[in-house]
Amino acid sequence: MTKQDPVSQNLRIQKTFEALFALEDVREIFRGALPSGLNETEEQAFQNKLAELRGLVSELETGTGKPEILKLTGNLPVRDREEACINIQPIQAAGRLTVEARKALIAYGDGYSTCDSCKKPFRLDKIKEQGIADFHGELAEFLNMDQARVVPGARRGFQAVISSLLEKGDVAVVSSLAHYTEFLSVEHAGGIVKEVPLNEKNIITADATAEKIEDVIRETGKVPKIVMIDHFDYQFANEHEVREIAKVSHAYDIPLLYNGAYTVGVMPVDGKALGADFVVGSGHKSMAAAAPSGVLATTEEWAPLVFRTTQMQGDLTGRRFGIKEVEMLGCTLMGGTLFSMMASFPAVKERVLHWDEEVRKSNYLMDRILSISGSRVLSEYPRKRALSKVDTTGSFDKVAQAHKKKGFFLSSELANRGIKGVFPGATKAWKLSTYGLSWEKVTYLGDALTEIAEKYGLGIQDEHAA
Amino acid sequence: MTKQDPVSQNLRIQKTFEALFALEDVREIFRGALPSGLNETEEQAFQNKLAELRGLVSELETGTGKPEILKLTGNLPVRDREEACINIQPIQAAGRLTVEARKALIAYGDGYSTCDSCKKPFRLDKIKEQGIADFHGELAEFLNMDQARVVPGARRGFQAVISSLLEKGDVAVVSSLAHYTEFLSVEHAGGIVKEVPLNEKNIITADATAEKIEDVIRETGKVPKIVMIDHFDYQFANEHEVREIAKVSHAYDIPLLYNGAYTVGVMPVDGKALGADFVVGSGHKSMAAAAPSGVLATTEEWAPLVFRTTQMQGDLTGRRFGIKEVEMLGCTLMGGTLFSMMASFPAVKERVLHWDEEVRKSNYLMDRILSISGSRVLSEYPRKRALSKVDTTGSFDKVAQAHKKKGFFLSSELANRGIKGVFPGATKAWKLSTYGLSWEKVTYLGDALTEIAEKYGLGIQDEHAA
Repeated sequence: MTKQDPVSQNLRIQKTFEALFALEDVREIFRGALPSGLNETEEQAFQNKLAELRGLVSELETGTGKPEILKLTGNLPVRDREEACINIQPIQAAGRLTVEARKALIAYGDGYSTCDSCKKPFRLDKIKEQGIADFHGELAEFLNMDQARVVPGARRGFQAVISSLLEKGDVAVVSSLAHYTEFLSVEHAGGIVKEVPLNEKNIITADATAEKIEDVIRETGKVPKIVMIDHFDYQFANEHEVREIAKVSHAYDIPLLYNGAYTVGVMPVDGKALGADFVVGSGHKSMAAAAPSGVLATTEEWAPLVFRTTQMQGDLTGRRFGIKEVEMLGCTLMGGTLFSMMASFPAVKERVLHWDEEVRKSNYLMDRILSISGSRVLSEYPRKRALSKVDTTGSFDKVAQAHKKKGFFLSSELANRGIKGVFPGATKAWKLSTYGLSWEKVTYLGDALTEIAEKYGLGIQDEHAA
Repeated sequence: MTKQDPVSQNLRIQKTFEALFALEDVREIFRGALPSGLNETEEQAFQNKLAELRGLVSELETGTGKPEILKLTGNLPVRDREEACINIQPIQAAGRLTVEARKALIAYGDGYSTCDSCKKPFRLDKIKEQGIADFHGELAEFLNMDQARVVPGARRGFQAVISSLLEKGDVAVVSSLAHYTEFLSVEHAGGIVKEVPLNEKNIITADATAEKIEDVIRETGKVPKIVMIDHFDYQFANEHEVREIAKVSHAYDIPLLYNGAYTVGVMPVDGKALGADFVVGSGHKSMAAAAPSGVLATTEEWAPLVFRTTQMQGDLTGRRFGIKEVEMLGCTLMGGTLFSMMASFPAVKERVLHWDEEVRKSNYLMDRILSISGSRVLSEYPRKRALSKVDTTGSFDKVAQAHKKKGFFLSSELANRGIKGVFPGATKAWKLSTYGLSWEKVTYLGDALTEIAEKYGLGIQDEHAA
């Protein structure tokens, strides 16, 4: 099952890009022209470009011709990973743009494109035109929280919350699997992190969290200022006891930050039902949006603190800056990133309703991997998520030991079958995601892994095979 | 000179977008397909879409047909402000994407697209592939500084510097025309702003800065921690004595932050010659990049502080996070925003060399505005910049008083001539930018304003006319 007919398929993909680029050249002619119309030179350039475009459409149709544009300015290669391959890179899967987002990015890529209709009071989330204000309301509703803002990445959401809540020396309780950006947000505020231990199944429990809070109080004499919990962590993508942890946390009057970088946008998240005081999500990780983007949502209780408006006044001019929010530093996503999030949003709202199907595909592929003798799943199993960590030390790594390409044989064999996103060289513990792939693709993945295993004489155990 | 032939021109623009969108639909077919090629259903969808595309190309050629796609998902209108109009919106002009940036955004819009080849030590500015590491080096060189990082907007650059330098209660000396994001960055750090007064020409001088520093020392007993100066401010776009201010600042051992939101990317900026310890620029405002994006550059002296790496360690796991930088919160622009900056960079490096021509165009248009009786230029004149503030209280505002559309008559008359970006309703003090417009467009603008003035009986003074 090495990729069939790759030349014509890849050429068609290449010609799709070239046609897109030719149309951007056409667009550039209009951008240079007067509103009254093209002059003779421009009209000629336009007709020439159209002739080129016609040629490209013919090549696209027939799958013939030669690739012409392999590099963009600055020697940047044309990226066709999503078109030519099945991409199972763990952090890229749910940030892949929808076709709607790609169209929005074409139309709204220019710098400050959100500002066309900005009026008093001059704040991004208040702009009525283009549906920007409505989108902020819908985002809050989607997460069942009271207020939401867009931020340049989940990390900037953590920073806003931590910076509002922690003084120097204050403690944030985090998971032993907390993402490094949670650490950095606490370090930035001069705070201290205290980690809750994992149980034997690599799960953060409410009991362990309560014990850690008690420990901190005993050791420091101070109650932690926040508990930050990843619903699913970035290492194993295991599910942690976030709802129960919120109850524990609230028993100590500590607010809970729900790190939804791996959940918001891929599965239903009901902030209030979970007991979250803050919900943070990632646009480029899980909401099919361009980077950097994300969301920070909170309750009416906490909004006045985290979304506090500027109180500063110029000593000389007496200037004030109205309703600009300190933690947001005013407006956040002033262009294409926001519109890519907005354009994907209807699809995102729909896809979270089909989470169970994504989990089924994930488990199907895990079973196919487990069917290869010596393979293990390091994440909790059965899987509750599309991202998983597997251990093929007892299978593919044995092959790697004897292979002239060493560990690179696996990513190379996969690439030959049009599969990308496995960390090159990894044959022991590695991560992958099946998020958003069709059943055909997931089956293809399973078949490819089995085929590679068989090619190198690894056993296939039928009880796990599909 | 009302827009001629607007139907065919606008229709062609519309069809350019529709063809781009059709190609994104084609692309989506490949994204859904197996690496082995299209199946029968997909091939059929592909051929249908190609037939549609052929039709669009014909309509594009002949300028016939009907607009089909006016709204994207979520009721988002297709934005054709840059193609159908001359856009003089003051903050949008230099953030307009180059055609190279638009192509890069098409190829690299997906979420974490910078991460295809991320290897140890896992930090954005260290990624060698796609030219990312080199770009960071070139950025520093471009500004004649030692190190540079990309940040999600100039404001995040201010925040990183201020947060590194100021403790609670510390003073930042800023301009009386400082941008609100400078205020917010200081407020965020718990600091205090002290404003340097303007002279009678609305310029911040070195003398006034020295006096303010002395005042602060006298009043608070503490030396300010930083002086932040906008080379050109956002209000008048006047040039301030930044080089001399840096000398004054250094005489007190105070570092200087050069706010280049209105200069970096449009005119040559030599950080060391200016005496800047920090140079902050904006990608979406002045570097033809998608939002949010920007640059923070500094010297070898200050890099270890502002780009300090994480020192935090998990109390339980002992985890450390290597060379992740605290103020950057790790990686910053993980996708299309960065590639849009990179793709525009060769054009940006070239365009700063033609700054004098941009200034000439600006002055040409100011002279045309001054030729309309009763009009004034509020910015310093002759202009040293493409952005200017004018006062038409004595000209267009007089017309507005009697016009049934009131102040909206001006933006409306301009829109009828294909000119956008003047704040709707403004006829007293308003801002505009001629940045990046051709001489044909600038002349067209001048003619349009004169024509509107004459239509409403305002006098034209020949000494200022072109």
